[in-house]
Amino acid sequence: MDKTYFSEDILNFEEFIIDASKKLNIDEDTLKNGFKRKLITKYEYNGRKYLCFKKKLKHIERGTILFLNDNLDFIIGYPKIRRAMVLESSVKKYFNGKIAVEEKLDGYNIRIVKMHDEIIAITRGGKICPFTTKKVKKYLNTKFLDDFPELMLCGEMVGLNNPYVNHYYPEADRTYENLGFYIFDVRNKKTNLALSIYEKEKILDEYNIPYVKPIKIIDSNEIDELWNILDDLNENHREGVVLKDPEMIKNPIKYTTHSTQCGDLSIAFSYVYDLGIDFMFSRLVREGYQSFEKCESEEERKKRAHELGESILLPMVETITEISKESVAKECFELYFDSEEEFIEFINYLKTMHINFAVESREYIKKDIFKAKINRIYNSTSDKIKSHLDGNLW
Amino acid sequence: MDKTYFSEDILNFEEFIIDASKKLNIDEDTLKNGFKRKLITKYEYNGRKYLCFKKKLKHIERGTILFLNDNLDFIIGYPKIRRAMVLESSVKKYFNGKIAVEEKLDGYNIRIVKMHDEIIAITRGGKICPFTTKKVKKYLNTKFLDDFPELMLCGEMVGLNNPYVNHYYPEADRTYENLGFYIFDVRNKKTNLALSIYEKEKILDEYNIPYVKPIKIIDSNEIDELWNILDDLNENHREGVVLKDPEMIKNPIKYTTHSTQCGDLSIAFSYVYDLGIDFMFSRLVREGYQSFEKCESEEERKKRAHELGESILLPMVETITEISKESVAKECFELYFDSEEEFIEFINYLKTMHINFAVESREYIKKDIFKAKINRIYNSTSDKIKSHLDGNLW
Repeated sequence: MDKTYFSEDILNFEEFIIDASKKLNIDEDTLKNGFKRKLITKYEYNGRKYLCFKKKLKHIERGTILFLNDNLDFIIGYPKIRRAMVLESSVKKYFNGKIAVEEKLDGYNIRIVKMHDEIIAITRGGKICPFTTKKVKKYLNTKFLDDFPELMLCGEMVGLNNPYVNHYYPEADRTYENLGFYIFDVRNKKTNLALSIYEKEKILDEYNIPYVKPIKIIDSNEIDELWNILDDLNENHREGVVLKDPEMIKNPIKYTTHSTQCGDLSIAFSYVYDLGIDFMFSRLVREGYQSFEKCESEEERKKRAHELGESILLPMVETITEISKESVAKECFELYFDSEEEFIEFINYLKTMHINFAVESREYIKKDIFKAKINRIYNSTSDKIKSHLDGNLW
Repeated sequence: MDKTYFSEDILNFEEFIIDASKKLNIDEDTLKNGFKRKLITKYEYNGRKYLCFKKKLKHIERGTILFLNDNLDFIIGYPKIRRAMVLESSVKKYFNGKIAVEEKLDGYNIRIVKMHDEIIAITRGGKICPFTTKKVKKYLNTKFLDDFPELMLCGEMVGLNNPYVNHYYPEADRTYENLGFYIFDVRNKKTNLALSIYEKEKILDEYNIPYVKPIKIIDSNEIDELWNILDDLNENHREGVVLKDPEMIKNPIKYTTHSTQCGDLSIAFSYVYDLGIDFMFSRLVREGYQSFEKCESEEERKKRAHELGESILLPMVETITEISKESVAKECFELYFDSEEEFIEFINYLKTMHINFAVESREYIKKDIFKAKINRIYNSTSDKIKSHLDGNLW
């Protein structure tokens, strides 16, 4: 039976701190401080308690989870990928030789591991998501993790029918849902050490696991080719690229398209008081650097500016109009489950995550396909806009 | 001779707290806490020490100054004017009957008082500005303050040739400089109690002091007329309106034009890492409400969006380009002084205010006209953009 750390017994907590500190190779004070500042919080999945690191603490990445079992098993968080603001300068500064240009997909980051003889899917933030876990078990060949229990599959879940990021990918069309899962890294689940591009492709091919294929291997001085790739991606409304050292020794770098910046802004300004203003600001600034670096003509620059402006103003006015009629700002998700039980499990998960939502509809559309429409409610946006519509001042 | 509060002597500080607390009618703990949190700081003007309240503390407005003299004379800060986001709703909620619609000028807020037999001009933030003080003495009939020493003249300093806000006003053209001063309120300097619109106009007319004339007195249900006024102001690139209860019993409300929002954004995105992102965000949000309230056509809405986008992107790219050539983001001010001595006094003032600047040129252009070009240096913008141009990641 698992030790029960975290009863009300302080001695027991002290004991846990000593054990966890050894396990994670982090000093006790940092850990204790993490608890005090509520950067480490407790959750439960299928009756198993685990801790989630909400922020990076020393070398322990944000999103790391640690099970409160005898062995204090943990899965390290996915490392932050830094962003180039001026592509050419950053490429020249950080690479020297071959670069694997992979497409960056616009979905949500997931780590898949085997733990207690069970497959689980962990979100970037460090929650075990029952929806994603179910889909992974359904669509992915998880035998890989039986054979390599010390590894984790890191990838992007994409498509229209997930509860986090709705972006249509034609290649993710299935019989009734648009949902795809593409691995981009295979890493050690404790150390984050990654397989090289070649090893990764070889092994994933063997197990027939879908992965993000490099668009091209370029040399670090082929910047024009990189821009060609990005222009293509932009035209097809795709997110951008991750630039990788094929050996995975150097840290990858990311860079996103104009189309993505506009899409992000549209979402941000739809839920204008809920998404942080840092989110908006960073997208605007990226556009400044991109327009500069591309040496755009006056006409091209104005076109970009106009698209930016539309991404900001139009969704904002749409939301204000909606709230003037319906009093609430919401985002709709259409999800498919294998059964009503699975749907209820997911709803309970959303509740424990303190996400505010409303179920719009729920029904079996076939014997084993349960479809639900869930509206995520944006409270700050709803309340603040309603208040101004009522004449309250800033 | 003045008592010297604030020597290193703690007893003396305690004595000051007791006296100031009585004078300002604020509890001692709040005052002490204000010092501890550095919300109250000490400055000096012409050898006289004064305290400046950098934030509102209970009823003591931000920008209040208190002289460290025997009598602890103080001048209360100019009260915050709240903003309508949805004009019609706010007008209906806050007014009932006549509204004096005054133009809101785009300059900087100044309070002029007589203190120690001397005229001083105090900025919104609570600094005695030598530049403004000199101009006020030169251009304004200050006999008014001899006759009413308990009152303060609150107004806007506008025009191209001031060190704070450069916005051209044709009516502020003088022989060699564009600089105007328009009073909007006459208030008691301790209580902020304001004269009615009618009393104010009468008394300022008597002393021949220029003031902001009401554009129109409207009734609180004449919203269409208010929008006509705003549309006119917008076309002429003017800032907006302040709506006042003619008796000045109710608090005024402000509302600004699309043109102002765009102008503010242009400045914000020119010095993109120096001006707060709250500043940018608030301007963007205002545009959402305005576009909604005006029930714009798709074409009108797109035009607004395009102008917004241009106000964001074009200045940002211009600054990045400038920094890629000259390594520095700067804003140029052309100021005119009566003598080189006055110029040096002002430069010393900027230094004590910890404003980073460089003098580009300085010369007598006539016997008693000393012209200086001063560049305000934006350090965060310069450093951060330089760093990204060098390839450093986000």
